[in-house]
Amino acid sequence: MSSKPATKDPAIEALQSLLGERLSTSAAVREHHGKDVSYHAAYPPEAVAFARSTEEVAEIVEICAAHGKPVIAYGTGTSLEGHVAALRGGVCIDLSAMNEILAVNAEDLDCRVQACVTRKQLNEHLRDTGLFFPIDPGADASLGGMAATRASGTNAVRYGTMRENVLGLTVVLADGRIIRTGGRARKSAAGYDLTRLFVGSEGTLGVITEVQLRLYGIPEATSAAVCAFDDLEGAVNAVILTIQSGIPVARIELLDEVQMEACSRYSELDLQAKPTLFFEFHGSTAGVQEQAEQVGEIATEFGGGDFRWATRQEERNKLWQARHDAYYAALALRPGARGWATDACVPISKLAECLLETRADIDASGLIAPIVGHVGDGNFHLVFLIDPDDAEEMARAKEVNDRMIMRTLALGGTCTGEHGIGYGKLGFLQAEHGEAVAVMRAVKQALDPHNLMNPGKIFSV
Amino acid sequence: MSSKPATKDPAIEALQSLLGERLSTSAAVREHHGKDVSYHAAYPPEAVAFARSTEEVAEIVEICAAHGKPVIAYGTGTSLEGHVAALRGGVCIDLSAMNEILAVNAEDLDCRVQACVTRKQLNEHLRDTGLFFPIDPGADASLGGMAATRASGTNAVRYGTMRENVLGLTVVLADGRIIRTGGRARKSAAGYDLTRLFVGSEGTLGVITEVQLRLYGIPEATSAAVCAFDDLEGAVNAVILTIQSGIPVARIELLDEVQMEACSRYSELDLQAKPTLFFEFHGSTAGVQEQAEQVGEIATEFGGGDFRWATRQEERNKLWQARHDAYYAALALRPGARGWATDACVPISKLAECLLETRADIDASGLIAPIVGHVGDGNFHLVFLIDPDDAEEMARAKEVNDRMIMRTLALGGTCTGEHGIGYGKLGFLQAEHGEAVAVMRAVKQALDPHNLMNPGKIFSV
Repeated sequence: MSSKPATKDPAIEALQSLLGERLSTSAAVREHHGKDVSYHAAYPPEAVAFARSTEEVAEIVEICAAHGKPVIAYGTGTSLEGHVAALRGGVCIDLSAMNEILAVNAEDLDCRVQACVTRKQLNEHLRDTGLFFPIDPGADASLGGMAATRASGTNAVRYGTMRENVLGLTVVLADGRIIRTGGRARKSAAGYDLTRLFVGSEGTLGVITEVQLRLYGIPEATSAAVCAFDDLEGAVNAVILTIQSGIPVARIELLDEVQMEACSRYSELDLQAKPTLFFEFHGSTAGVQEQAEQVGEIATEFGGGDFRWATRQEERNKLWQARHDAYYAALALRPGARGWATDACVPISKLAECLLETRADIDASGLIAPIVGHVGDGNFHLVFLIDPDDAEEMARAKEVNDRMIMRTLALGGTCTGEHGIGYGKLGFLQAEHGEAVAVMRAVKQALDPHNLMNPGKIFSV
Repeated sequence: MSSKPATKDPAIEALQSLLGERLSTSAAVREHHGKDVSYHAAYPPEAVAFARSTEEVAEIVEICAAHGKPVIAYGTGTSLEGHVAALRGGVCIDLSAMNEILAVNAEDLDCRVQACVTRKQLNEHLRDTGLFFPIDPGADASLGGMAATRASGTNAVRYGTMRENVLGLTVVLADGRIIRTGGRARKSAAGYDLTRLFVGSEGTLGVITEVQLRLYGIPEATSAAVCAFDDLEGAVNAVILTIQSGIPVARIELLDEVQMEACSRYSELDLQAKPTLFFEFHGSTAGVQEQAEQVGEIATEFGGGDFRWATRQEERNKLWQARHDAYYAALALRPGARGWATDACVPISKLAECLLETRADIDASGLIAPIVGHVGDGNFHLVFLIDPDDAEEMARAKEVNDRMIMRTLALGGTCTGEHGIGYGKLGFLQAEHGEAVAVMRAVKQALDPHNLMNPGKIFSV
C-alpha cells in the first residue's frame, strides 16, 4: 500500500485548483478506488479526481503528465484482475459523473454514451425503442470499463463481445490529446483499427471517455430452458454439437453439479444437482421453436433430461437471475470464504477435455470450486472458495489455476476469455503470446513513453 | 517510374544469393508487380523476391532492413488504391508460392492458411466439409491480401468483414522477427488486439504470411431473388427497413438503372433497366421462407415489383455471376474506357440521401458511372468509365469523387468501406480521422522506425 500522500505535492495542488472538492485525498476514498471486486490486494491511489467531461479528463491527464504521475481510470470498480490498483501510486480518475447517454440512433442501430453509463442503465433507457445492448458481464459494469477490458458475458455466443460491438471511441491520450476513433459506418477500411487497439487495452494506452455501440432489435420471440445431464461430458458434447451445427443460440451456459447444488439452495429453484445447461433462443416465433427442437434432439442424444421451459418474461428472469447469482450461490457453499473467479477459454472441440481434466484436478486438490461457463464460446470459470489468509490453501488454488491455464494454452486456448490481464496474469500473457508481447510493449511505448497510463497492467515496461 | 536497378546493388546481390532464380529483376516482372487492377499509375519495384515460407520472408526482410530497402508484399495484385506500387523503390515479395491450406479444424469452424491461398481455392478445398468462408471481394484475392486490406464483399451484412473473421495471423515484422497474433479461441481478453491492428494495415506494419480464419456451416437452405424498383429511393428505403427490422439477410446488393442496363446486356439476363436489389437468404428451410416473406412485404411497400426467385444452385449462380460481372458489364457501356471503382460507406439511415445526391451529381457531370453497392452495410461504389489520358475528364471524375467522399464524411460515413487507403486516399483519411492519424503514425513509427514497410501507403511519414 502506498503511504498517505504528501499534502504539498505540486500535482495534487494543481488538480485541487482545477477540481476543488472534486479532488479527494481522503483515506476512505482512496482505499475504495484502489481495489476491484477480486481477491487482489488493494493499492490506493494518491488522490481521486472526479471528472465531469472529456475535456476535464484531458486537463487532469495533462497535469499528471507534467508531474510524472500515473493515471488510473475508474468506472464501477468491478474488474477481476486488479485493473484499478494504483501499483505505482498516482491519480485515479473516477468517471462516475460521466454517465450521460449522448445519442441513440434507432434507425442505424447504434448509440453513443459517456464512459460511465452502465449496461443496465443503457438498456433501461432503450426500453421504449425496441432495441437492446446485449453484452452482459456479471456486474452492472460501465460501458467504458467494458470496452477497456474487452468484456463479454452470456450473450457473446450470438452477439459477440465488446470487440465486435464497439464502433468507435473518444480517448484521452497520455499527453492529454483527445482523439476520436472509428465511426458510425458499419465497416471501414480507413487506416489502422485504433478502436480495437484501445478495446482491451485496460487503460494502459489512454482513458476512454465515450463509446459508440452497436444495438440490436429485441427479438420477436425469446425462449429459455434448462436441461440437466447425467455427466459433465454429455453436457459439454451437447454444447459442441450445437455450435458445430450452426444453431444460432443466444445463450448457452454450463453450470456443473457443484454449482447447481449451490444455485438450487441459494435461488430456491427446484433444480437437480447435476451438470446443467441453460439455453436462450432469440428469433421469430417459428425460428425459436425450430432452434429449440434442434437443440432438444442434440441434448437427448448426449444424455440430457427433459427441457424445463420458460417462455414468459417472469420465468425467464428467474432462471437467468439464478445464473447471474451463481457467484453468490457459490460463496454460500462456504460461509466466510472469498471467491476467486478464474477465466479460461479454449477452442470448442477441446472444451470437454479441458473441463474434465480441470474438474478432476480440483477434486484431487480438496478445494471447493464450482464451474460455470459461457460454454458456447469455449469460455469457463472456476470459482475457488478460499480463505485468503490461509497461505497453504491459496498456494494450492494457485497451482490448480496455473495448471488449468497451461492446459488451456496447450489446447490452443487463451489465458483469459473476458476478464483481462490486469496485474494478475502478466506471466500467462507472456506464455500465451511470446514475442508478440514485445510488439504490444512497443505500441505502449509509442503512445505512453513515460509509462503513466495504468502502469504495471497487461505487462511490465 | 523507378529506373532500372543497379546490378551491383548489395541488397539485390544478397537476395540473389539467398533466392537464386527466385529473385527477378526483369523489367516485365517488375512492371507487373508495381501495379494493381486500379487506374493508379505503376511504380515497379527494383526486384521481385518469390518467397516460399515465413522463414524465407523473414530472411528477405532482414536483408532489406540491413540495406534500407523498402519491402512491399504482393498477393494477387487485385487491390484498388495502388497498394502494391513501389513508390520509393525497394523489393516486392511475391507470396504466390505460399498457397498451402495448413489446417482445417472442421469441429471448431476454423482453418489456417498461408497468405496466398485465395478465397475460391479455400472454398473449393472446403467443399466436402459442409463449411465455407463467406468473405468475397469481387476478385479471387489472396486471404493474406484480404486481411491486409480489411476486405469484405457481398456477404458482410450477415457474416462481417475480414475484421470479424480473422482469428489470428503470422506476421514478419520490419526487423525480420516473426510473431503470431491471436489464437484459436473464439474470444480473448489477453492483451492488445494485435490481430486487428495488422488487419487493414496494408503491409505498412509487417508482412502477413499466415491467416487463421473463421468458417461457417453451409446453410441448410439458400434462396436468392431479384426485385426491380420504380426509383432508387424506393430500393434504398427497402434496404433500410430490412436492416432496421433485423432480418438476417445474407446478401442485399443494389444495382442502379445504369448498371442494370449494362448487366442485362452483358449477362444476357432478361432484367429491367431499373434500380434493382439482389437478395440472398441463408438458414433453415422455414427460416429462409420466413425471411423472404418479410422482405417481400417490405419491398412491395416501397414500390418493388415481383420477386424473381432462384432457389436452384444453377439459377443462383447465374444471378450472382451477373452481379459479380457488374464491373465488366459497366466497362462494356463505353468500349475502350477504363473503370475507376470508387468506395464509400455511410450509416444506413443516410444511404438514400447520399446515393440520391451522388446520382444527381454524376448526371450533372456528364460522366458515365453506374452505382453498385453492398447496401446492407451502407457501402456503395461508383464505377467511372473514363479515359485516363483525358485530363479534363479525369479532373471532372475526381471532383465528383471528392464531393461524394466529403458528403459521405459529413453524413458520418467513412471514405472507404472495403478498398482501403493505399496511396489513393491519403487526404481523405486525414479528413476522416484528424488527430487520430497522428496516433496511427506513432504506431507505425514504433513498429517500422525506418519506414520500410510499404512506405507511402495509408499516410506519409
